[in-house]
Amino acid sequence: MAALAAGVTGGDRRTLARTITLAESSRPDHRATAEAVIEHLAAHRGSDLPSTVRIGISGPPGVGKSTFIEAFGTHMVNAGHQLAVLAVDPSSSVSGGSILGDKTRMPELSRHPKAFVRPSPGGGELGGVARRTRDAISLCEAAGFDRIVVETIGVGQSEVAVASMVDVFVLLVNPGGGDELQGIKRGIMELADLVVVTKADGDLAAAAGRSAADYRNALGLLRPRWEAWRPHVVTCSSVTGTGIDDVADAIAAFGDATGASGEFAAHRRQQATDALWGELRSGLVDRLAADPHVHRRITELEPQVADGSIPPTAAARRILDAWANPSP
Amino acid sequence: MAALAAGVTGGDRRTLARTITLAESSRPDHRATAEAVIEHLAAHRGSDLPSTVRIGISGPPGVGKSTFIEAFGTHMVNAGHQLAVLAVDPSSSVSGGSILGDKTRMPELSRHPKAFVRPSPGGGELGGVARRTRDAISLCEAAGFDRIVVETIGVGQSEVAVASMVDVFVLLVNPGGGDELQGIKRGIMELADLVVVTKADGDLAAAAGRSAADYRNALGLLRPRWEAWRPHVVTCSSVTGTGIDDVADAIAAFGDATGASGEFAAHRRQQATDALWGELRSGLVDRLAADPHVHRRITELEPQVADGSIPPTAAARRILDAWANPSP
Repeated sequence: MAALAAGVTGGDRRTLARTITLAESSRPDHRATAEAVIEHLAAHRGSDLPSTVRIGISGPPGVGKSTFIEAFGTHMVNAGHQLAVLAVDPSSSVSGGSILGDKTRMPELSRHPKAFVRPSPGGGELGGVARRTRDAISLCEAAGFDRIVVETIGVGQSEVAVASMVDVFVLLVNPGGGDELQGIKRGIMELADLVVVTKADGDLAAAAGRSAADYRNALGLLRPRWEAWRPHVVTCSSVTGTGIDDVADAIAAFGDATGASGEFAAHRRQQATDALWGELRSGLVDRLAADPHVHRRITELEPQVADGSIPPTAAARRILDAWANPSP
Repeated sequence: MAALAAGVTGGDRRTLARTITLAESSRPDHRATAEAVIEHLAAHRGSDLPSTVRIGISGPPGVGKSTFIEAFGTHMVNAGHQLAVLAVDPSSSVSGGSILGDKTRMPELSRHPKAFVRPSPGGGELGGVARRTRDAISLCEAAGFDRIVVETIGVGQSEVAVASMVDVFVLLVNPGGGDELQGIKRGIMELADLVVVTKADGDLAAAAGRSAADYRNALGLLRPRWEAWRPHVVTCSSVTGTGIDDVADAIAAFGDATGASGEFAAHRRQQATDALWGELRSGLVDRLAADPHVHRRITELEPQVADGSIPPTAAARRILDAWANPSP
């Protein structure tokens, strides 16, 4: 454990990767080791570590996430940052890995000495994926990475999970009309602190500009998430590099504004507290469902609740009583 | 208990009101009696009860909710329905009752023999308010009311709670421009199955029509919640009565479409199952926090989680272990 912790803080990539693998493992002993390392690192955090920014990146399929992260990430490392790229993909257990190897997806970044690209972990339910990603973020930060990109892949609620663990949420969108806007998943637009219209080059440059105006209007309909920040919309091309610096500038401006208002730190505190209560709730439900007697009661009562023949409150009370007072 | 149950199914208003009051009580013995009545009624539901529609109604302050419910409710009872009006107001404990008596707000409906207007219950945390409102819905339906209006009052997440217990969610909005649109709370637009632009009379009639078009555009940006239903936008005037029948027609069309697709019944089943798991989670957390030893650990560890000196996972494990293995 001490060796792993020392390897991580010493910046050894292989130890970092190995510790993340332990945190992602389904074996309880592996997970316990990783947890001990993470706990040790949290308690003995180096005071010389740089301040970090956690950047969530999402967007519909085909928007060019990999090429964007390659271009944006290269810009970040060239500006002197140490960059880690993580992925959240709750669907990968179903699809058998929805993406090609990350080394193929981001060839330049994968080879860069100041970048660490982590393949997306195996699937599982979203709560588990979220916890493992939080663990990976902690480990990368302890290893000295000051910019953490968390990319969402796959479907469903992964964006909400990612938004709960990053400082700033970037939504990539295609240039295009109203149909494109309709393709954005429910609720995702509301999470966006920065909307990036991709492919703003060649024939699509004009369409990208029009789309940016449309998204500015659409964002104007939503209540702001922050006192000190209104969502920005920028256009960029991962091919020509145009606008990539605007994305980096907007993220820096976001950090400055929310840092000055105190919201940046308050948001992190709130996220950590929410994660604690989330862990407590899921830990309690796990312990409840692991009791075979209780499990039988749940199996019995859940369909009756669904068809309305027993109210949820009464069923919940019976299940909790079965837990408190086990009987044969 | 049997007398209360018989009174409710017999359609006795005073027994219905008294049972709802017991369900809302903070006294455990009162709540246990109400729970027993509700459980009995669920298990012995009359097969002759009409099918019901639960209608959530929300909107910003000043939109004219009371006058709309008065006009719309009168239309419903004149069309032969039995109507119950309930209110959800988690803020009322803070504000000391944010509204005037409901009899003053809806004078005509309050006097109508086929309507039952229930004053909003006292405040408390949202989970408790949601459970009490679900109980009140069950009791009203057992008493033969076939249209249940659940009105949101107050602030915060009450709309999401109401959406979790109704079949169709109606959002009332003022006629007006982009500023009005911006006044709609985050995420509320996404819940709306029907948007009603109020005050469509006199000088504001033209503005209401333009607003309706704006809302149709805005709704087009959101993913639909249902296979068989796209949100409708109608204009109405509670003063002249224009458009009130369009609201009723739209709600009937919603019921027909989602009923035919099977989504109406599936949605209710899902809501009931979600409510069960919500009750289990909150029951578990209540039992956890009620343990004084555990409570001390939470008080100790929560600030450390917030400042990052202990990871949420490790803190959760320690708290759960403190519960499983109490030590002095």
